[in-house]
Amino acid sequence: MQKFNYGPENPEITYVSHKYDEHLFDTGDAIINYAATGSPDKPAIVLIPGQTESWWGYEKAMGIMADYFHVFAVDLRGQGRSSRTPGRYTFDNFGNDLVKFITFVVARPVVVSGLSSGGVIAAWLSAYAPPGMIRGAHYEDPPLFASEITPAYGPSLRQGVGATFKLWSTYLGDQWCIGDWGEMLKSARDILPPGHLRLFEALYGTMTEPPQHIKEYDPEWARAFVTGTVGASCDHARMLSRVKCRCYLPIIFHKLMRRLVI
Amino acid sequence: MQKFNYGPENPEITYVSHKYDEHLFDTGDAIINYAATGSPDKPAIVLIPGQTESWWGYEKAMGIMADYFHVFAVDLRGQGRSSRTPGRYTFDNFGNDLVKFITFVVARPVVVSGLSSGGVIAAWLSAYAPPGMIRGAHYEDPPLFASEITPAYGPSLRQGVGATFKLWSTYLGDQWCIGDWGEMLKSARDILPPGHLRLFEALYGTMTEPPQHIKEYDPEWARAFVTGTVGASCDHARMLSRVKCRCYLPIIFHKLMRRLVI
Amino acid sequence: MQKFNYGPENPEITYVSHKYDEHLFDTGDAIINYAATGSPDKPAIVLIPGQTESWWGYEKAMGIMADYFHVFAVDLRGQGRSSRTPGRYTFDNFGNDLVKFITFVVARPVVVSGLSSGGVIAAWLSAYAPPGMIRGAHYEDPPLFASEITPAYGPSLRQGVGATFKLWSTYLGDQWCIGDWGEMLKSARDILPPGHLRLFEALYGTMTEPPQHIKEYDPEWARAFVTGTVGASCDHARMLSRVKCRCYLPIIFHKLMRRLVI
Amino acid sequence: MQKFNYGPENPEITYVSHKYDEHLFDTGDAIINYAATGSPDKPAIVLIPGQTESWWGYEKAMGIMADYFHVFAVDLRGQGRSSRTPGRYTFDNFGNDLVKFITFVVARPVVVSGLSSGGVIAAWLSAYAPPGMIRGAHYEDPPLFASEITPAYGPSLRQGVGATFKLWSTYLGDQWCIGDWGEMLKSARDILPPGHLRLFEALYGTMTEPPQHIKEYDPEWARAFVTGTVGASCDHARMLSRVKCRCYLPIIFHKLMRRLVI
Repeated sequence: MQKFNYGPENPEITYVSHKYDEHLFDTGDAIINYAATGSPDKPAIVLIPGQTESWWGYEKAMGIMADYFHVFAVDLRGQGRSSRTPGRYTFDNFGNDLVKFITFVVARPVVVSGLSSGGVIAAWLSAYAPPGMIRGAHYEDPPLFASEITPAYGPSLRQGVGATFKLWSTYLGDQWCIGDWGEMLKSARDILPPGHLRLFEALYGTMTEPPQHIKEYDPEWARAFVTGTVGASCDHARMLSRVKCRCYLPIIFHKLMRRLVI
Repeated sequence: MQKFNYGPENPEITYVSHKYDEHLFDTGDAIINYAATGSPDKPAIVLIPGQTESWWGYEKAMGIMADYFHVFAVDLRGQGRSSRTPGRYTFDNFGNDLVKFITFVVARPVVVSGLSSGGVIAAWLSAYAPPGMIRGAHYEDPPLFASEITPAYGPSLRQGVGATFKLWSTYLGDQWCIGDWGEMLKSARDILPPGHLRLFEALYGTMTEPPQHIKEYDPEWARAFVTGTVGASCDHARMLSRVKCRCYLPIIFHKLMRRLVI
Repeated sequence: MQKFNYGPENPEITYVSHKYDEHLFDTGDAIINYAATGSPDKPAIVLIPGQTESWWGYEKAMGIMADYFHVFAVDLRGQGRSSRTPGRYTFDNFGNDLVKFITFVVARPVVVSGLSSGGVIAAWLSAYAPPGMIRGAHYEDPPLFASEITPAYGPSLRQGVGATFKLWSTYLGDQWCIGDWGEMLKSARDILPPGHLRLFEALYGTMTEPPQHIKEYDPEWARAFVTGTVGASCDHARMLSRVKCRCYLPIIFHKLMRRLVI
Repeated sequence: MQKFNYGPENPEITYVSHKYDEHLFDTGDAIINYAATGSPDKPAIVLIPGQTESWWGYEKAMGIMADYFHVFAVDLRGQGRSSRTPGRYTFDNFGNDLVKFITFVVARPVVVSGLSSGGVIAAWLSAYAPPGMIRGAHYEDPPLFASEITPAYGPSLRQGVGATFKLWSTYLGDQWCIGDWGEMLKSARDILPPGHLRLFEALYGTMTEPPQHIKEYDPEWARAFVTGTVGASCDHARMLSRVKCRCYLPIIFHKLMRRLVI
């Protein structure tokens, strides 16, 4: 079996080049990598990727959006070329990284749009960012409550994507300390519930090495979700009660996935 | 027995007036109360109170310091007239409140000086604040490691002030939901180790109601320390390895207290 | 307001006399109080009370059952006249107390019947007791999964009775260290969801002191359920996969309660 | 690199034969493997192995002891040929397995002697076993307090053997789900403190596969210690306050090890 070890310390095997230039911003707590396009005379929008995504998951969309927005797409800590911060992956820290990014890099009020876990962070910003900073928020398929381990409403992480995250965490390891992609694929068959396995195998089953978007991911994210440390100080019910701007919350992929999975 | 219920929702029984005007700053996540004195042509300093302290613990010092500094003294979330944020008392959140305070209120590089728990937050800022924001940091008697529940070095919270914090948490309750000062004093005799009890009784033994500085304190702070949630995503060993500015770390009171307590 | 302090250390205000004699059995880890009736030539049955119940919740039933069974009704640790064991209320410990009780007191195979939390312990015995010890198990309205904080299936404790348990834990305190019955009733109005409050007020609303069954209860039970420590090493899904005897699982009261509560 | 997968499901690669016959006893909760020698007319003694040991760590000693004792040496759950019980490795469960073993197999009062973690379980038995069951207890180099994550006294697990346990847990995995011995040896160099590394390399550095005693070990033990779940309901200070029989507590190896390590 082959051991993979990806991350900022092994950039040559981890990253590929993209259509847009990448830039680094130091929040003091983490280095945040981002790309930008469009023009400053348009409204500013910040795009927040989902779990196992990097900024360039928005690469195609950015081209289309550039006509209407000054577009910023970021790597969160633990994604892409941004810092790895062991023990410090929390919604509060993800959110505060972006508050600093918006303050110092964008430097004017923004619309935020986040996908999946990024949608939860968009919700965080709409609740906890400084007054006036967020003009509107788009939560795209956010696992509100569903990414918590003891949610106020609905099924918990354990009852959904938890088994997949546990698989990643166990066989890839914090900062790829394990990196056993092959064993992960094999173990999926024993560990994942049937519907999840079907999706998992459709996505990854034939790959002899991780796809690009997984290479750029710190698997400690998965552990932070499974153990609940990611949201230990950020109850979703409380967070949503604090939202201070207009929000748009479409649920498309997760509904579709549910159909596939169940 | 008498039930006490202090906090921003009962301001008339909780607060007293002070020599300096108080101001409010909204971080989006919390309202931060502060006082300021001295002149903007002097270096800026931010004073960070300890547990069960409010900004006015620095009231006398501010008069002396005003000749040399533009002085800002803050109430952290859960102190004084600042917000109560149930479930959200963490070093990362305390620290990021101050990053926003310094960015938007002070608006230039600062020296920070924190006492006790405030000293840990001064350390947080010296490690995690944006580059160039902190000119120097003064940690005054900070319980580095000693306020953690599983520290990398030295005795843990349980082996030190933990019993006292547990007492406060149990008999005062989150946001003063219990407020049983009298029972707390009585139970101290059963619960506190001898040295701690001696100090505790010297400080509070004869008081039929809480002293002013305790009235302004959210006892959920104590619970956050006892359970370790305050530092769950902020290991002190890692934090100190990230310090990026000059620090001054005097240990005076804690040594003295150790002599009294042991 | 009046402070109540119940438990084995204050027997004269805590306990009342009953129709059946009470006996004590020392497991080494806890003193288990029990009553017995019926004849040794009938099949043995062990009755396991629910949360906030003592053995005498079965007092009337015991008279009827005595014609058919050698009936044993127990107080679990933290109930009635059995031991208080701070920090040690877990399903594994409740269950192992009964294994020893059956081994040394009943001394032959038994049927077990448990109500509510006691039903979960009946399930524990049907899964984990020594081979041949349990002839059959009756789980009466057991909160399987529903008393877990991160269950494999269905709503968690937080989404059900959790708020009520948190109320008990906060205002009564471990081993009645708070004992503020009056404040508990008042706070219920702010804290409990409407349906739960209706039930709670119907049961306790007019009582100026705790009813007998609550006096005999160690409120640390409630905390052990809210924090999940009670089941930290006893996942219900795994437990049920290990059941080795015939079980009868009627759901009556909890369905009724759901109708009242929702 | 080679993946190893040991345990009762792969007996042919996991176990070797021994001088004494092995027997299985079913507690209902776990299958306990043991060997016995000596004569029933001598006092009974139960030998409890340490972490990463199996009963046959006592194989030589048993020959010598057989002149004086009826000797029983056990595999605890997660050791040797005893059951693997995912999620259920706690001191309370280890201890209660032995209470049943002594009740049903030995069937008379015993002396217990445990090494290292086994010494903590000997302490558990001296505190929590049924009255009269334990005639005396020998704790051999037990990590009292030192195996807790938030001990009442002294350094915690994190400050001692924790890094080694974390290494085992990460690279071997619960029930050998990872089994990456080679990567474990390599990572030791980055992760272990110098003294621990020296000991670790002296023991394992040249081994291309795990030694016999490690093959028979469920690495979930290590995780249960690192996370503290093993002792979550068994505080050592409280346990020791409950000891009811004579104890002999020699500290030899741990002192020696400290000299090697520090």
